[in-house]
Amino acid sequence: MKDPIQVRFSGAGGQGLITAGIILAEAAMLEGRNVVQTQTYGPEARLGSSRAEVIISSGQIAYPEVTSPDVQVCMSPEAARKYAPKTAPGSLVVLDSTCVRDEITTTGRVARLPITQAAVDLGNKVVANAVALGVVNALAGIVSHESLVKAVVARVPRKYAELNERALTVGAELATSAAESAGAQAASS
Amino acid sequence: MKDPIQVRFSGAGGQGLITAGIILAEAAMLEGRNVVQTQTYGPEARLGSSRAEVIISSGQIAYPEVTSPDVQVCMSPEAARKYAPKTAPGSLVVLDSTCVRDEITTTGRVARLPITQAAVDLGNKVVANAVALGVVNALAGIVSHESLVKAVVARVPRKYAELNERALTVGAELATSAAESAGAQAASS
Repeated sequence: MKDPIQVRFSGAGGQGLITAGIILAEAAMLEGRNVVQTQTYGPEARLGSSRAEVIISSGQIAYPEVTSPDVQVCMSPEAARKYAPKTAPGSLVVLDSTCVRDEITTTGRVARLPITQAAVDLGNKVVANAVALGVVNALAGIVSHESLVKAVVARVPRKYAELNERALTVGAELATSAAESAGAQAASS
Repeated sequence: MKDPIQVRFSGAGGQGLITAGIILAEAAMLEGRNVVQTQTYGPEARLGSSRAEVIISSGQIAYPEVTSPDVQVCMSPEAARKYAPKTAPGSLVVLDSTCVRDEITTTGRVARLPITQAAVDLGNKVVANAVALGVVNALAGIVSHESLVKAVVARVPRKYAELNERALTVGAELATSAAESAGAQAASS
C-alpha cells in the first residue's frame, strides 16, 4: 500500500461511515501502524451528509488532516459531486452505483460498484459500510483481510458480527471482479 | 461555553471514549455547531490506551487538531500522567478518582470524581463513558442536556439507551456536587 495512505468515506448520515472509519483505523492499529481518524461535522452534516477520514502511516503523522485522499468511496450523489472531482490524478474513486447514478467528472481512477445493493442482497442494508470497507481495502491493500475481520468483530454488536464479516468478503469480491474487468478492458483495447 | 472549545477524553481501551467523543460531537452538531472529532491511535494505543478529541465551534474550524484542551477527563493513571500536566492554566482537568489515585501535578483546575464507581453503582461499568460525558458537559456547559440525551439515544444500542441516559444525569449531578464543594471550600478559606 501507499504509506502514508489517506482514505475518505463520504455519503449520507445513517450509512455507518463513521463506524467504517473507526474499524479501518482499528484494523491498521492492530497491525502496528499509526492512525488518525477524523469525522468532520459541518453545515453539510446538518443536511444529512456524513464524512469519515483515516490516515494510516508506518511513521509519525505530521498533519492530522486528509488533504488528498488516495482512495475514497462516495455513497451518495451529493458526496460524489462534492468529493469525487477534487482528487489527485491516479487516486482511486469508488462510487456506490446503487446510490450514485450521475456522470461524475474526476481525474482519479473510477470504480463503480453496487455496494448498497450487495448489502441488500446479504439481507441488510446496514452492512453497506462493511461492504464498502471490503471494497476499499481490497483495492488499496491497506490491511490484511484478517485484521479487518478482527476489527469488525471487536466493534459491531455480536449478533451482527457474522453478517458484517460476510459483507467484508463480498466487498473484497466486488473489488476483485472490478479489477478483473478493468484488466480485461485494458487487454482488449 | 468557550467558543471554540477543545475537549479530550483519555483513558484505556474498552472504556468507550471514542463513543463518548462521537456522542459529544453529534450533540453539538444537533445544535448547529461545527465539529471536528478525532481519534489518534499511536504506539500508546497498542499498549491499551485510548484518546478521543472534539473541537466545537460556532464558526469555521481552521486547525482540526486539539492543541490545548479547555476541558479534559483522564480515566486511567497512564492518561492522567500523560495528559493532565500539559494543560493551559485555568483549563479543567477531571480525574476519574476510581481509576486515578496518584498525585497529579497540573496547572489546570482539577476535579476528582468517582466516574467509574458511579457507573458501577448504576449497574454497569460500561456506562462510565456516559457518566464522564455528563460530568464534562455539566462543568463546561458545552451543549444542552437534552441534546446530549438525543445524541446518546441515537448512538447506543436501544436496550442500553435508558441506562445511558441515567448515566448522563448522574454525571451532571456529580459535577454539580463538585462545583458546590469547591464553592464551599473557597467560602470557608
